[in-house]
Amino acid sequence: MKRYEQFAEQIATLIRQGVLAAGERIPSVRQASRHYGISQSTVFQAYYLLENRGLIAARERSGYFVLENARVLEHARVLENARALEHARGPEHAQRQENEPQDGAAHTVPTQVAVSELVFSVLESLQDTSTVPFGSAFPSAELFPLSRLAASMTRALRAMSPQSIGADMTSGHPDLRRQIALRYRLGGMQPELNELVITNGAMEALSLALQCVTEPGDLVAIEAPTFYASLQLLERLNLRAVEIPVDPDRGLDIDVLAERLARLPIKACWLMSHLHNPVGVSLDETRKQQLYRLLKQHQVALLEDDAYAELYFGDTPPRPIKAFDDDGLVMHCGSFSKCLAPGYRVGWVSGGRFAAAIERLKLMTSISPSLPAQAAIADYLQHGGLDRHLRRLRQRLEQQQGLMLAAAQQYFPAETRVTRPEGGYFLWFEFPARVDSLSLFRQAMSAGVSLAPGPIFSATGDFRHCARLNYGHLWTERSERAMKTLGQLMTANSGGV
Amino acid sequence: MKRYEQFAEQIATLIRQGVLAAGERIPSVRQASRHYGISQSTVFQAYYLLENRGLIAARERSGYFVLENARVLEHARVLENARALEHARGPEHAQRQENEPQDGAAHTVPTQVAVSELVFSVLESLQDTSTVPFGSAFPSAELFPLSRLAASMTRALRAMSPQSIGADMTSGHPDLRRQIALRYRLGGMQPELNELVITNGAMEALSLALQCVTEPGDLVAIEAPTFYASLQLLERLNLRAVEIPVDPDRGLDIDVLAERLARLPIKACWLMSHLHNPVGVSLDETRKQQLYRLLKQHQVALLEDDAYAELYFGDTPPRPIKAFDDDGLVMHCGSFSKCLAPGYRVGWVSGGRFAAAIERLKLMTSISPSLPAQAAIADYLQHGGLDRHLRRLRQRLEQQQGLMLAAAQQYFPAETRVTRPEGGYFLWFEFPARVDSLSLFRQAMSAGVSLAPGPIFSATGDFRHCARLNYGHLWTERSERAMKTLGQLMTANSGGV
Repeated sequence: MKRYEQFAEQIATLIRQGVLAAGERIPSVRQASRHYGISQSTVFQAYYLLENRGLIAARERSGYFVLENARVLEHARVLENARALEHARGPEHAQRQENEPQDGAAHTVPTQVAVSELVFSVLESLQDTSTVPFGSAFPSAELFPLSRLAASMTRALRAMSPQSIGADMTSGHPDLRRQIALRYRLGGMQPELNELVITNGAMEALSLALQCVTEPGDLVAIEAPTFYASLQLLERLNLRAVEIPVDPDRGLDIDVLAERLARLPIKACWLMSHLHNPVGVSLDETRKQQLYRLLKQHQVALLEDDAYAELYFGDTPPRPIKAFDDDGLVMHCGSFSKCLAPGYRVGWVSGGRFAAAIERLKLMTSISPSLPAQAAIADYLQHGGLDRHLRRLRQRLEQQQGLMLAAAQQYFPAETRVTRPEGGYFLWFEFPARVDSLSLFRQAMSAGVSLAPGPIFSATGDFRHCARLNYGHLWTERSERAMKTLGQLMTANSGGV
Repeated sequence: MKRYEQFAEQIATLIRQGVLAAGERIPSVRQASRHYGISQSTVFQAYYLLENRGLIAARERSGYFVLENARVLEHARVLENARALEHARGPEHAQRQENEPQDGAAHTVPTQVAVSELVFSVLESLQDTSTVPFGSAFPSAELFPLSRLAASMTRALRAMSPQSIGADMTSGHPDLRRQIALRYRLGGMQPELNELVITNGAMEALSLALQCVTEPGDLVAIEAPTFYASLQLLERLNLRAVEIPVDPDRGLDIDVLAERLARLPIKACWLMSHLHNPVGVSLDETRKQQLYRLLKQHQVALLEDDAYAELYFGDTPPRPIKAFDDDGLVMHCGSFSKCLAPGYRVGWVSGGRFAAAIERLKLMTSISPSLPAQAAIADYLQHGGLDRHLRRLRQRLEQQQGLMLAAAQQYFPAETRVTRPEGGYFLWFEFPARVDSLSLFRQAMSAGVSLAPGPIFSATGDFRHCARLNYGHLWTERSERAMKTLGQLMTANSGGV
């Protein structure tokens, strides 16, 4: 890459990251030359390139400005590049998976950098509120009892004593801890109170728990597909992913996991046993027990992400793998973000034998999640209302799932396959082989509809014909039209986009 | 170490960490033998050892129980061991500092594990509310307008729209961002709005910022003494500390820093330019500029911890080093925890050229700090009252500083030296050489008074005759008596504890 191309890339990155916003002036040729220590002609060449790419424009006598659509264009380009990369290594890659090398090394060193870029591009493009949010990771906040929570907050802050703030920051709000322990007991589990660490949402719980059981370079077994945050976290902590396939009907392939555990020095396993993101599948109890025995046999710690624990459609709450943990190996992570209080950022981990280490790491990293949020949720849980709210929420999500499934059947290509999860707010689609979900994403975004393309859920760029769609927002005419648009895009591109 | 000693150590650690609490039953000899795969006689020997140490006791026919004082005893033992370790390497260590090796390696690989244990022991012992909290890191929450904040919270939650929750989680509450930017402008600074990343307190800001500019193994210049959290964080991220001395009157020794920067591949510098913790000193503007030029010349990123920005006693707010940053090198970290809203956990970093990277890392680590807390603080800032509150707070802290200084003069040994910071809520004492602050800490804790012993502020176990005392709590008869107690302990131990 030549110097002017490098410099153009730097500016493009700033645009993609939103550091240089639409309408903003970029440094003049002279300023840039001085600031970056490059010649004026290099800067000029770089700006010429960026103009040609449609990212910036010169205005007479006032310099260069970022154009309105620059950011979207840059996202699209990153996606295209990632796709090109996949195409380039497509055939060998597929073959490599079939005839896996004996040491498993090639398969366990995934191309994570591209994934993280992809994920951020997708996340950033979702921020436009005029887009139909099928690609969102969150259910609509309108589904939650925000005004009742606000009343709880008012009451809780009145009761909060200044003297208790110090101690509560170290160990979490005591009423909240008790309420969480109580819900475990309702589910037939008896975790020790001192196993609970309150965190800034489940994300922080997962991040701390993973750090407590791994060192840089370690292998971690994750699902394929998987929640993209796990890929980003592994990348950041210099951990290597061993991908274990998830079957849409039965969940994680335990035989493959057993084989990998026997062969590779895996340090931890990270999975969702219930309402898996993105596939939506849950393990049945027999498989959960089987899985636990396997991990216990190898003394491998389990990071059980159970953020959707309360979003089941059936009559009885499924038990997590944690319910079978008689050896303190399971770190069970939960959250109120998806079932009660979005934006409050309160989660927890029931950390088993790692709880004390997780609490210490939390103190070193962020000290404590917000106390008013903890106190408000504790008050809400104490004064009842949660179960009634959850019943309504589940009913509503189940209805919305039905509406999205019906629309998919009506508008999507006939060969499309889809899961029918027993809860949550995601559907996982497998489109006909001619549909490339990254292309579809790009085209759909231009048409005002988002979706989560399959490759962001994999360290190896798989699931190119798949996508996750969110039905956790109120179903309206607009949703219906958006489904139709997606269907049309897939049909129009039947030649292979 | 024999097997039974190892096992005893495991149980003692659980007691120290509070996993096994006072009064709790520990596993029976038979259970422990089965669970840990060791012989019953090994377990028995271990329990016998723990009984002799005064940690557990057998009750007839009901097994072994943790004794009331076990945890405190264990803390004391850890402290003693750390002290013994220092004694053991004392002379060579001191000499090593004088005749420093050319490559600086020995001096830049500190014994951090012991420090972290020490810090946690001290922090845990502070949780007892019956103790006079001179060792605390926080000012009393009673100094803050908690009920006014609660009113702001109620108003803010009423105004919060469910639709905005998603976007606000990514980029922070927009009103809060604007208010923070406004306060920078009042101080004559013009940071770009998109340089601001809202975080879960200053601690998360510092943790994210440090990770964005370093890789494991890198060298980071820190102050000696320094805020202990920086030592813990460096330890956790496998970074190596290069300690730069802080002079109680003039602050960081810039000449030493210049020499180190010239000689060592230092990747970042972490410091407090204003009301340094624990010493209390501030750099004057000339030194701040000098320091900035030096860092800019070496293109070394600066992590400027400015958590006490608002706690100055003078008439005009001191400007941070960030005010001189024309190259985006300074990551300026602030917080509302120490000046307005303890326990709300809202801080920020004005991240310069690293802002976009910090924001991404935040999304991967904890997604977002609590939105209700952000909204409440934004409302409070908008509806005025902050400046009046701050004036009262500063006045009160200044009075309390005077009271503690007077008490120290009355009760502490005559040779004691003390700083007189122009703000904040800490005094840094240097006691006569015969006083060992770890011993003093242990004895003071038994007498119901806490303090922060010098060695927890150093990677190399220095400052053994120093201690930090907190005057940020209401000054009462009890405080007065506690100062007297400390003075008596130091006199009683004049033989050298």
